[in-house]
Amino acid sequence: MIGRDALLTDLYQLTMLQGYLEAGMEGEAVFELFVRRLPPGWSFLVAGGLEQAVDYLEGLRFHEADLAWLAASGRFSRDLVERLGRLRFTGTVEALPEGSCCFPDEPIVRVIAPLPEAQLVESRLINLIHFQTLIASKAARLRLAAPGKLLVDFGMRRAHGGEAALFAARASYLGGFDGTATVLAGARFDIPLFGTMAHSFVQAHADEAAAFETFARAQPDNVVLLIDTYDTEQGAARVVEVAPRLAAAGIRIKAVRIDSGDLADHARRVRAILDQGGLTEVGIFASSSLDEAELTRFHADGVPIDGFGVGTRLTTAASHPYLDCAYKLQEYAGQARRKRSEGKQTWPGRKQVWRRYEHGRAVGDTLAREGEAAAGTPLLVAAMRHGRRVAPLPTLAEARERAAAEVAALPEAMRDLASTTPYPVAVSPGLRALAVEVDRRTATPREVEG
Amino acid sequence: MIGRDALLTDLYQLTMLQGYLEAGMEGEAVFELFVRRLPPGWSFLVAGGLEQAVDYLEGLRFHEADLAWLAASGRFSRDLVERLGRLRFTGTVEALPEGSCCFPDEPIVRVIAPLPEAQLVESRLINLIHFQTLIASKAARLRLAAPGKLLVDFGMRRAHGGEAALFAARASYLGGFDGTATVLAGARFDIPLFGTMAHSFVQAHADEAAAFETFARAQPDNVVLLIDTYDTEQGAARVVEVAPRLAAAGIRIKAVRIDSGDLADHARRVRAILDQGGLTEVGIFASSSLDEAELTRFHADGVPIDGFGVGTRLTTAASHPYLDCAYKLQEYAGQARRKRSEGKQTWPGRKQVWRRYEHGRAVGDTLAREGEAAAGTPLLVAAMRHGRRVAPLPTLAEARERAAAEVAALPEAMRDLASTTPYPVAVSPGLRALAVEVDRRTATPREVEG
Repeated sequence: MIGRDALLTDLYQLTMLQGYLEAGMEGEAVFELFVRRLPPGWSFLVAGGLEQAVDYLEGLRFHEADLAWLAASGRFSRDLVERLGRLRFTGTVEALPEGSCCFPDEPIVRVIAPLPEAQLVESRLINLIHFQTLIASKAARLRLAAPGKLLVDFGMRRAHGGEAALFAARASYLGGFDGTATVLAGARFDIPLFGTMAHSFVQAHADEAAAFETFARAQPDNVVLLIDTYDTEQGAARVVEVAPRLAAAGIRIKAVRIDSGDLADHARRVRAILDQGGLTEVGIFASSSLDEAELTRFHADGVPIDGFGVGTRLTTAASHPYLDCAYKLQEYAGQARRKRSEGKQTWPGRKQVWRRYEHGRAVGDTLAREGEAAAGTPLLVAAMRHGRRVAPLPTLAEARERAAAEVAALPEAMRDLASTTPYPVAVSPGLRALAVEVDRRTATPREVEG
Repeated sequence: MIGRDALLTDLYQLTMLQGYLEAGMEGEAVFELFVRRLPPGWSFLVAGGLEQAVDYLEGLRFHEADLAWLAASGRFSRDLVERLGRLRFTGTVEALPEGSCCFPDEPIVRVIAPLPEAQLVESRLINLIHFQTLIASKAARLRLAAPGKLLVDFGMRRAHGGEAALFAARASYLGGFDGTATVLAGARFDIPLFGTMAHSFVQAHADEAAAFETFARAQPDNVVLLIDTYDTEQGAARVVEVAPRLAAAGIRIKAVRIDSGDLADHARRVRAILDQGGLTEVGIFASSSLDEAELTRFHADGVPIDGFGVGTRLTTAASHPYLDCAYKLQEYAGQARRKRSEGKQTWPGRKQVWRRYEHGRAVGDTLAREGEAAAGTPLLVAAMRHGRRVAPLPTLAEARERAAAEVAALPEAMRDLASTTPYPVAVSPGLRALAVEVDRRTATPREVEG
């Protein structure tokens, strides 16, 4: 997999390492990965991707071919190339377990390691955590929009490359989907697989009924028939027509799929046709440009659709295809640090997140200095020490259960997709005092004068 | 690389193959990959990803572990698993060369192969062509918005996974960017690399001036200093302060980078500070949430920025993170086919695209049946025969030159990002007649009656 490639990083990580090496700066650095603000209309995130991040850190090494390429590039000293050849990740990682709900400014992952190691891993670590957190959060929103419905990831083809397809399947399952159509995700992550047929299957046959029969006899345990290749209602009538012949062969039609037009309108007509044909047990599955808005509307209107294939808008998180996340130096050589760039200030130092619950519902978080007492339960836990995982991480199934439980425990306002009430995250007195102290130490002359 | 994994497909490809196998349907199929409509405000596409698609098709095979997993899944017959073990792609591929400009409904790639092969490859083929076409097109738009400026892909961290980062670097270079920060893209595709420093580098030092000096001495040929960690104008003053010491050591500062705040305003102030400090040769490089709109405005206002790092909004194509593309069966066993689903109708049969030029400018395309005469130059060319490439594909550098030339040859309206004039694509009489013929043949009883 591409994930283990040490060259999958930004050039500036290597140029900075050259600088750190020459300046002898190998002290302990603390970086935290967090999201600055939520996409418009979102009120929570579901953390994802830690398993892949830990795999990456454990496997990090520059191979001979990488080192040869770096040396030949002429950009780096022989000392740096040699140092990179020996480099392994030896640090500590503390993180929110996958499936945790989290909010802006809360560390999702903290890396504590010698500065060159902690710096080098920035690009790929963000790349891994950002995407799965994005998709798990998007999936959790879709899950809230379609209570009780089957939700399947159909988005491999328009995901941004193969790794995105694979990780989107994993993250959407984590966030509450029931499964995916992506076979490799089933094989790698043991995620339930779902699949029907494409229009080409119907087109390749002389007529629709023949296509339905061929398909049903070849996949008797999973008969979902696509009925909109030519005319949706005619397709439904065709299903009613072939059903008795299939029943005689002991084959039950599980569902029909609609993939075009006004899905709500078609679903109602198709439901009536199937019911009148005695096929009350046959479900309706829909796909085609679905997103939270459509699912919410279908739910409100009681549209008779039993399950949804969500594709492009899930796997590209099309409504907002990125999170404003960052990986920032919060401490170096024992001193807290803080970036103060306009609109991009960070809270300095090592932080812990504390969550308070009342009657089983989360009511607010506190962002505090590590070691500072706060009310509630601390959320960041050790994932790696000395470059190795401290224990097996929770399985994907466990992480998925955590996500479901944490989303269920959010305040009602956070579970309402139309609400824009922010979840309360307080900053502790100790953390505020530390920020003032760091600002005083690193203030520019002009600021001190002013 | 993940790209060679035969299981990276949708489950329905395999369930359909089971059906085709049992029905003995192995006739020649013709599928075409095309875009149905452009993202709002876009007026052209730049085709990308063919190199990776051909690599995938040439390398396609199910390995022992894949077959064992498929057999153990209990979903497929022993015959199918055995057939998959022998499956190779043996077909023909015709395609627009990478870097070609294209428009809705025009085939980007055509696959002609026995039905099971042509069907199976759908998911990954779309996955590969869609993403690079999306990013190459986005990059070409950014290139038009910033004439004469250095443009660098900075988006690895928020790209959707590792493959997306790598392919976004490749596709943005194809579309007119000058390079990327992603080291692996430099190593794999020989794309020029650019990199500066992160805020953490400045924060890790006792003060900004020390950070600048360490960096410059470690990377004397590539001194780009990030000046906004604490205060942008103070950072610029610091650059003026360290410049003579570095000059004495023979080190020239190439540029400063600004990454926050009002970039235009800061750039003007910083330009003045640098000029007053005698650093008229030091360039200004900017990053931070850039997209077409900002680059267009900076250009119109003559903002003194010499180059841009474009990150998230490039590599996720954030303004519209997908193309409405499809891979449709257009012919099977010698008969033209057509999908007629609402809003998703296709033009049937094998097609060629003809482009007419006047005075070196493209003036219109014709979508015609293959073999039908039309005015202009035919654009689809053979890439593979009998499952092997017919000749080496154009290099990335050649494809990039083609993209630059084709974008330059577009009508002025297409090169104006504010214009919404569509490029004229005519449908030939032969193709219209074929569509009528196919509709008559596959019409549903109700339609015939109506």
